[in-house]
Amino acid sequence: MTADNALELIREDLDKVEKALLENIGSGVPLINEVVSYLLSSGGKRLRPAFMILSSRMCGYSGEKAVMLSVVIEYIHTATLLHDDIIDGAKYRRGMPSANGVYGNDIAVLCGDFLYSRGYITLTEWGDKAIQRLLSSTAMIMSEGEVVQLLKTADINITMEDYLRIIESKTAVLFSSACEIGARLAGLSEDKCASMASFGRDLGLAFQMSDDILDYLGQREKTGKAPGTDLKEGKLTLPVILLVKEAAEEEKKSISRIFTNDARDEADLKYIVGLMEKYSVREKSEDIMLDYISGALSRLDDFPRSEYRDAMAALAKAMIHRQK
Amino acid sequence: MTADNALELIREDLDKVEKALLENIGSGVPLINEVVSYLLSSGGKRLRPAFMILSSRMCGYSGEKAVMLSVVIEYIHTATLLHDDIIDGAKYRRGMPSANGVYGNDIAVLCGDFLYSRGYITLTEWGDKAIQRLLSSTAMIMSEGEVVQLLKTADINITMEDYLRIIESKTAVLFSSACEIGARLAGLSEDKCASMASFGRDLGLAFQMSDDILDYLGQREKTGKAPGTDLKEGKLTLPVILLVKEAAEEEKKSISRIFTNDARDEADLKYIVGLMEKYSVREKSEDIMLDYISGALSRLDDFPRSEYRDAMAALAKAMIHRQK
Repeated sequence: MTADNALELIREDLDKVEKALLENIGSGVPLINEVVSYLLSSGGKRLRPAFMILSSRMCGYSGEKAVMLSVVIEYIHTATLLHDDIIDGAKYRRGMPSANGVYGNDIAVLCGDFLYSRGYITLTEWGDKAIQRLLSSTAMIMSEGEVVQLLKTADINITMEDYLRIIESKTAVLFSSACEIGARLAGLSEDKCASMASFGRDLGLAFQMSDDILDYLGQREKTGKAPGTDLKEGKLTLPVILLVKEAAEEEKKSISRIFTNDARDEADLKYIVGLMEKYSVREKSEDIMLDYISGALSRLDDFPRSEYRDAMAALAKAMIHRQK
Repeated sequence: MTADNALELIREDLDKVEKALLENIGSGVPLINEVVSYLLSSGGKRLRPAFMILSSRMCGYSGEKAVMLSVVIEYIHTATLLHDDIIDGAKYRRGMPSANGVYGNDIAVLCGDFLYSRGYITLTEWGDKAIQRLLSSTAMIMSEGEVVQLLKTADINITMEDYLRIIESKTAVLFSSACEIGARLAGLSEDKCASMASFGRDLGLAFQMSDDILDYLGQREKTGKAPGTDLKEGKLTLPVILLVKEAAEEEKKSISRIFTNDARDEADLKYIVGLMEKYSVREKSEDIMLDYISGALSRLDDFPRSEYRDAMAALAKAMIHRQK
């Protein structure tokens, strides 16, 4: 099964999510509707809704809650994007000018706050206590992850554990919650809910690693993104951590100097990418990422075979980019 | 009864709130605990908790929920302060350097997000569906109010209706919810809940008006605040709206010019305050504010006399500053 087939399988539900996402904004302030619609219409892939819906269908739930809780997840996700772009001073998001770029930081802060609350209102209506608890904790962990990431900016001593903690908080918990909620909606046992949570977590970790590898080592022609954003922002991610592990003493000093400088430029990126090639960092990074994808896929064995299960596997594999 | 007596009456509960506020932060990221504690310890008056507790006691509820939901309200309130200070570029809050000043805007954005989520986690544990709905809607309305305020910045054509809408959203709804929750906890009828909500709303409106009057017409010796912050930020509040109504055509043009300029200085403040004195704007503003306080107090007649009711009235009257 291809990823496209997987999405086709739940097309009707995804269309409902798309409609509900826009219909539920409903602010009395036109500008808020405009900003939020702008963001929601800028080509998000709705991966979290897709996994929540697939997980719920695989687990045997077929009701509307998966659609409405997908809206909650996507609102929370969009709120974090709004606030992250302010923090990163991002000028673009998915190839379009970022909301903070178009409307200013002030409006972007407030529209993020609006979306969190809008999400909780929908959550109150559609989620039971366990799901409410899960999603509000998730949002909290995400903000914590972003703080840790800020604290570790340009810190050459960042460890693999630090890195995993950051990407687990900022990315993996939301995928984890999306998948877990699918199982909860179906009323499965705590064990099965935990399996789905682990699937989502490992998937989210691999997804973020894929993104992080591309940011240093991707090709603009293939990804549509200019590489080097993380370097500019001083973000030390998987490939840099692996590089620092391998590099010779002198090279380590140069890397450290680059991250200590206030500004990093094209020449710095070239130098670092050169070292990454020298030490086969891409391959090593992708091996780690693939381990997490395998870990995720193995969790699916806890569930009976079905086209939904195949779809989850297909979508998971398609989410990561790799060379080999 | 004095305001101090009123607070003394619920001292034990307020102490519990104080303790729970700090104990419930509990982030795994030490910096978040530091920032939030910094803010919570900077001398907030806990007016919203006081009114929620007094309202619940007056309505006949004596349990712990009033304490824990006060924590939720105070977290939401603190989150909005964090984000508002970023938007206003505020350097001080309650006489201390603002959190964004000390820790930077990025950390302040994220700690605000943390507090919203932390609040919702506590809300999920302690609030029933009606209270959850009320507080998440309240947070949403507050963000909307802030957006409208931004849109009306330096807009000399702002109407009294615009102004009331802004201060209702940004200030009054949270007081309204605090008071309404007191009645809900006691299981009173929808009518009584609505009475308490109206009490809180009118009180909140008067409270914000008092603040807005002081910002143009207060004396630093009495208030401890430097007047003119709203003018600098281009905020047209009650006294300016009343002034524009009264001013002669030429004066109106000057006021308009002042607000159209990018920067406003001491001379501008002096000119505007001079005009406000000429047209007795303080008296006119205070009359409107006092109408709202009277409106609030009259709602208390829907409830049987008790020391809690007296305390609510005493605290309400003490919350507004006036000359006469």
